[in-house]
Amino acid sequence: MTWLQRYLPILDWGRKYDKETATNDLVAAVIVTIMLIPQSLAYALLAGLPPEVGLYASILPLVAYAIFGTSRALAVGPVAVVSLMTASAVGELARQGTPEYLGAAIVLAFLSGLMLVAMGLFRLGFLANLLSHPVISGFITASGLLIASSQLKHILGVKANGHTLYEILLSIGSHLTEINWITFVIGASATVFLFWVRKGLKKLLLGLGVKPFLADILTKAGPVAAVAVTTLASAVFQLGEKGVRVVGDIPSGLPVPQLPSFDSELWLALAGPALLISVIGFVESVSVAQTLAAKKRQRIEPDQELIGLGASNIASAISGGYPVTGGFARSVVNFDAGAATPAAGAFTAVGIALATLFLTPLLTHLPQATLAATIIVAVLSLVDFGAIKRTFAYSKSDFAAMAATILITLFFGVEPGVVTGVSLSIALYLYRNSRPHMAIVGIVPGTEHFRNVDRHKVITGERVLTLRVDESLFFANSRFLEDKVYALVADKPDIEHVVLMCPAVNEIDASALESLEEINHRLRDSGVTFHLSEVKGPVMDRLKGTDFLKHLTGEIFLSQYDALCTLDPLTAHISESRTPKKTARSNIWSGPEI
Amino acid sequence: MTWLQRYLPILDWGRKYDKETATNDLVAAVIVTIMLIPQSLAYALLAGLPPEVGLYASILPLVAYAIFGTSRALAVGPVAVVSLMTASAVGELARQGTPEYLGAAIVLAFLSGLMLVAMGLFRLGFLANLLSHPVISGFITASGLLIASSQLKHILGVKANGHTLYEILLSIGSHLTEINWITFVIGASATVFLFWVRKGLKKLLLGLGVKPFLADILTKAGPVAAVAVTTLASAVFQLGEKGVRVVGDIPSGLPVPQLPSFDSELWLALAGPALLISVIGFVESVSVAQTLAAKKRQRIEPDQELIGLGASNIASAISGGYPVTGGFARSVVNFDAGAATPAAGAFTAVGIALATLFLTPLLTHLPQATLAATIIVAVLSLVDFGAIKRTFAYSKSDFAAMAATILITLFFGVEPGVVTGVSLSIALYLYRNSRPHMAIVGIVPGTEHFRNVDRHKVITGERVLTLRVDESLFFANSRFLEDKVYALVADKPDIEHVVLMCPAVNEIDASALESLEEINHRLRDSGVTFHLSEVKGPVMDRLKGTDFLKHLTGEIFLSQYDALCTLDPLTAHISESRTPKKTARSNIWSGPEI
Repeated sequence: MTWLQRYLPILDWGRKYDKETATNDLVAAVIVTIMLIPQSLAYALLAGLPPEVGLYASILPLVAYAIFGTSRALAVGPVAVVSLMTASAVGELARQGTPEYLGAAIVLAFLSGLMLVAMGLFRLGFLANLLSHPVISGFITASGLLIASSQLKHILGVKANGHTLYEILLSIGSHLTEINWITFVIGASATVFLFWVRKGLKKLLLGLGVKPFLADILTKAGPVAAVAVTTLASAVFQLGEKGVRVVGDIPSGLPVPQLPSFDSELWLALAGPALLISVIGFVESVSVAQTLAAKKRQRIEPDQELIGLGASNIASAISGGYPVTGGFARSVVNFDAGAATPAAGAFTAVGIALATLFLTPLLTHLPQATLAATIIVAVLSLVDFGAIKRTFAYSKSDFAAMAATILITLFFGVEPGVVTGVSLSIALYLYRNSRPHMAIVGIVPGTEHFRNVDRHKVITGERVLTLRVDESLFFANSRFLEDKVYALVADKPDIEHVVLMCPAVNEIDASALESLEEINHRLRDSGVTFHLSEVKGPVMDRLKGTDFLKHLTGEIFLSQYDALCTLDPLTAHISESRTPKKTARSNIWSGPEI
Repeated sequence: MTWLQRYLPILDWGRKYDKETATNDLVAAVIVTIMLIPQSLAYALLAGLPPEVGLYASILPLVAYAIFGTSRALAVGPVAVVSLMTASAVGELARQGTPEYLGAAIVLAFLSGLMLVAMGLFRLGFLANLLSHPVISGFITASGLLIASSQLKHILGVKANGHTLYEILLSIGSHLTEINWITFVIGASATVFLFWVRKGLKKLLLGLGVKPFLADILTKAGPVAAVAVTTLASAVFQLGEKGVRVVGDIPSGLPVPQLPSFDSELWLALAGPALLISVIGFVESVSVAQTLAAKKRQRIEPDQELIGLGASNIASAISGGYPVTGGFARSVVNFDAGAATPAAGAFTAVGIALATLFLTPLLTHLPQATLAATIIVAVLSLVDFGAIKRTFAYSKSDFAAMAATILITLFFGVEPGVVTGVSLSIALYLYRNSRPHMAIVGIVPGTEHFRNVDRHKVITGERVLTLRVDESLFFANSRFLEDKVYALVADKPDIEHVVLMCPAVNEIDASALESLEEINHRLRDSGVTFHLSEVKGPVMDRLKGTDFLKHLTGEIFLSQYDALCTLDPLTAHISESRTPKKTARSNIWSGPEI
């Protein structure tokens, strides 16, 4: 694979592109286009941006992803969580509806694009692993609830604002007397309709003998039907004049590409949010892409995905859009509709461009309540209370990180939520690892095997203490090891030798090495010799030439059995003489143990 | 041990206190007092505070530590690194010499004290482990260089400022024409004298037949001699009037205890620096205390040490002092001079109080250059280039964290330095752990043992792939495991079973559990059965009742040998028939391996 092929996956699939593939891609593109139009408008609304910005963010970014992305089915564009994060980040700097607000959203997309590309070039895709699954799941659930609550105002036809659940509900509560009942009827019936479409329609259609594929497509087209019906009603009854907020005039031209403003203060203020949006968007997108790729035994390249998403965001910024990423629902539709290559995305882009040019006049009377209903139904499907229950049952510390992420996201906002979740995941992990698992071991009679004295009938001598360490030694747990050794030696005055058995130690970092030196030093002062046994090859290679090995009072034994034979031949002999049967192998001891 | 005894160690040693112990403590206190007077003045100068503040910080804090601390020999008071951090934190908020500057330093001590006590009560001593040894060592080396360079201006008698090496050197450079030559002669000769005292005097005294203990004490008294001689010269020749900056009048009363100001904005601004000072101070102090305790087979209690240091800082704040911690040099002197209990610290406090009352008029003419020389000689002994070399040789990633800490500390300041070091330590650790060690294993002929196919002569079948995981599975490495399994299965079309051998897996967190479910799910889609073997007891206990176990297509085998006999009896049979000797045990394979 050449350098060019690695960074331009289009060169790979492009040269095998034929008519059949093109037909598949075209069909998928038509279906996704129809689905994407109301979604783009709705998520722009959620981000606090004019509706056309959502359309712009669904044109060039798709083309950019088609060139640079590796997933065959991923459909990029505006998504709910990223839209919410955009609203939260930009809302701190400018008021909705102002040119500054739009400008900041564009810069956010640009910055996020640059960061993603940089992360891809430096192959930092692994950073996404710092988000543990419970944290992601908790964040998405909380975002879903936050987004749904933020859309309530559109359903009720009241003015309200706020970035946290408390602010939003308080604000809606204080405006409850101003409910516009026509809006509420439209919003509530659209919501009920869309929920029914999602839960009941497919079953009904299948019952009526409709083919599964078609039933699926019709189900996904629910939002389009809701948009069409409510827009028609709104136009016929001139609801816009009766206080129902409608989308209004959408400029129908295509955006003219231009670079975002280079305002260093603005860039600095948006750098943090851009990083969070990049990471969250990447994690969401990569999970979707991996799931779909696996179904066809294809593979995606996470580092190249970073470049693909980065290019999409840069493309979004220069065409007047806002941050985008790969969306779950639309990618699944794209996949199910038969998209075979990223070209499907490019065809979708053409579809959205045509819609922007010719369909926007039809959307003037579209009630915002309908879009809000679309969003609510979409995001509530992201809310996964089952995951919370499962995590609670499986792991209290994972649950703690998840619960903190959910609560902080709901009550302090999305950015503190993610930061808390990631920090807690790491902190809990380090805390658990700061107490490495260790066991005092003795020999199993008649074998050369050593087992935990607390769990097995084993023989130990008075003069040799053998401590098996079951984890790599590193800065966060080395102090604990020191304490443990000193405490054990203080308790047992007869000890002459301490053996550290290291069969599971894959690494000893510089801090742990210093701790071992310190242990050696202090044991020497109290007349105890310090030995190691069963040190792995690579660990041993690095220990060679260190001061620790030079000063080590004892030896390094290849096997623990060697150590016992040398340091305490009497105990080894007693063990040997107790062999239960002459031919017994170690199988009685081979079961799992701590 | 009662609740009261745990939090008041004085109740333990206090009841056995006798005349002999008191004599030992008194002798040590006299020696430490003499050493501490110039140090207190010098470090106050380094922190940008009036000299008497250094003395105040050496009275009540020592009494508080005597009551709450657990180390028998630790001497608390102003230290170099914490003084530098104080100057850096407070310098951001106020100008040196103003009452606001002093007030902020006092609040910093108070906040740091509260944080330390809180950490102690919540038993968060383990947090200190997040500082890896190379990061601490790098930070201390860089701080030493920074402190030494910041004192150059006093040696040269020029005005200069700055918090980073670049700022300091630039500022000194631009004032070079203003050198006060008398100051320079005093400063340079004091520096040379003190270096000689440190390097050559002890040898000389020993050569003259002086007893080692006395030689040691005389060596440590070098700064006192330098102070006495230069003060006398300064007084006789009225150098203060010739442009030599002297300490000047020191108020000779004792501080009146009072609470620091409760200014919420100030507290918020100092919270971050206070946390860093607390952690750095704690780490420094605990290392010293542990080293000294080990020499007498005593133990210190890290969580109670937090409370002891916290009480000291609160005591410092209410008596007009600034942040303190346990100092290395003075604790060693205290220990060597025979301090047997923390009462030695209380006696030292009395000594410093007497000095504050009666000696301060004598110090009026003391040149600041002498104090600067004391600081330079003291901190340059902290600079450890050998540690940099050793770390480079042993571990490139530890070296990277160390180098970044040093460079950021030197060129961006102490706070960014510590934060970078800690973040990098954690990031590098997670990065390394995001690639768990795994090996494909086969059976060793004639045994029930399995070993890495790349390193041993083993037998493997075509239908069963066994992957041994050598680390716990958690969020940062679970994605890598998924990728690895998919890649292996994609490469080998004949595989029917994948067995994950888990003898070294001590934990599976919720993220890894989801990855295992995902692996099971995807392998099922491609007709491969997924099994586990040698799962440890506690891990198995938690897996019970999870969806993963319900949906698992394969089985969980107690031993890998069971798995092979069940899934691929042919290979097991071939292995059996190749037994080299009937009585051979596994000892030829028991050596270290990856």
